[in-house]
Amino acid sequence: MARLIEVTDAEDPAVDDFRDLTTADRRPDRPGGRGLVIGEGRLVVERLLASPYPIRGLLGERKRINTLEPLLRELDVPAYIVEPDTLAGIVGFHLNRGVLAVADRAPEPDPAELIRRSSKLAVLEGVVDHENLGAMFRNAAGLGLDGVLLGRGCSDPLYRRSVRVSMGHVLRVPFARLTDWPGDLERLGANGFRVAALAPRPDAVPVGRAGLSEGKVAVLMGSEGPGLSEEALRSSDLTVGIPMSREVDSLNVAASAAIVFHAMRSDS
Amino acid sequence: MARLIEVTDAEDPAVDDFRDLTTADRRPDRPGGRGLVIGEGRLVVERLLASPYPIRGLLGERKRINTLEPLLRELDVPAYIVEPDTLAGIVGFHLNRGVLAVADRAPEPDPAELIRRSSKLAVLEGVVDHENLGAMFRNAAGLGLDGVLLGRGCSDPLYRRSVRVSMGHVLRVPFARLTDWPGDLERLGANGFRVAALAPRPDAVPVGRAGLSEGKVAVLMGSEGPGLSEEALRSSDLTVGIPMSREVDSLNVAASAAIVFHAMRSDS
Repeated sequence: MARLIEVTDAEDPAVDDFRDLTTADRRPDRPGGRGLVIGEGRLVVERLLASPYPIRGLLGERKRINTLEPLLRELDVPAYIVEPDTLAGIVGFHLNRGVLAVADRAPEPDPAELIRRSSKLAVLEGVVDHENLGAMFRNAAGLGLDGVLLGRGCSDPLYRRSVRVSMGHVLRVPFARLTDWPGDLERLGANGFRVAALAPRPDAVPVGRAGLSEGKVAVLMGSEGPGLSEEALRSSDLTVGIPMSREVDSLNVAASAAIVFHAMRSDS
Repeated sequence: MARLIEVTDAEDPAVDDFRDLTTADRRPDRPGGRGLVIGEGRLVVERLLASPYPIRGLLGERKRINTLEPLLRELDVPAYIVEPDTLAGIVGFHLNRGVLAVADRAPEPDPAELIRRSSKLAVLEGVVDHENLGAMFRNAAGLGLDGVLLGRGCSDPLYRRSVRVSMGHVLRVPFARLTDWPGDLERLGANGFRVAALAPRPDAVPVGRAGLSEGKVAVLMGSEGPGLSEEALRSSDLTVGIPMSREVDSLNVAASAAIVFHAMRSDS
């Protein structure tokens, strides 16, 4: 059972894991050098508690902590109980979700192993925006992808804001970082994947007509502005596109991902 | 040509249209009682200038105003030039997009008229979240819907945050508010529309297999939590669903909209 501990002083070092969250993720002195994994709000906290990430502790208003009770029984960590003002003083802003959990990072799967056990993957290049990244993971979870490969220039999907926007789904969709870009893309072909690049090109096959639901498929997506690099495009087997109005430049990258991931399902 | 006017005092009443933007939209003393239409950043400002909304003025750093010069030639309104600090003092926060435009509301189309001239429509019920609403309008523009009907309980799509998240596309997608709910839905059937309700029901037809690209179709969507009301569901001709992973409760409503709007295109 988690140890319920009342904290009345926002300066109490016991709650340092939760301190000043708007800047804490930039602190390089944390495990992995990139901060802890932080879940905010009941739903995301529940998903963090159910994830493979080793929980360090919880912090929240008593009534919020109480709603988590069945899950707390399985844990041997502190759960700090605070008043709303103290909570705001610790995290550095008013948090209307009233409860947080913090966890250590866990080893990420080896890309080769993730590729081997998957049949539908997303491969991202240059997706910097944390909210878009989180939204893409939520879509990947909802639409049943096996995992996400992070290519060159992607942000950290475990950053607090990504976790929040993903509704905690980033904590359950396996992801791995590719270190050799675009060389690592060759592993996909070697494992029987067709690599489909999403790009607004005149010769692109409409995404609903490219047979993405059949067999092993990895879809390669860039960010909204620059899109995919030439080298990434060259590593793909085909180019797919989303038919759009002529007057509109592009969809949001997470909206595009939803359309593509949907097209990858055999029941779509 | 817009009149370039330097403003050095953040308290200058000339720039009152731009004052304290985080609360201004709640002021009931504005035209229509719901605030002005505000565009932030070059791209959205350009779309506001190209929209039917009557421009009242611009405010921005000199270099940002200068990039708009070709568009300013067509206008007979003040363009206030400010330093970044003054800009922050006026709007009430640091604005890294450096330029704004403000416009009056314009009459909205009559729902009956919008229905008559359209063949693909979205009908929203209870979409309160301004960011989701803006994202849905961006998707509607990108994927070529003819318009959006706002049913019961929807927020104002011209609220500043919706405009921003829509990338200004809410300024060009026609929308109308339905006042008789769900009675107004009968107008759709009378005009030859099939009304497809998006709902996670066991008997829902997969959205890609419901023939939504054929003929006149209006897709009825609710918000993420409560979904559509029973009465709205009863007013629909069929129920469509997005096939999803069993462990995931729902997609974000804007992501769902992207998938559905894509399925409504004849070239998808």
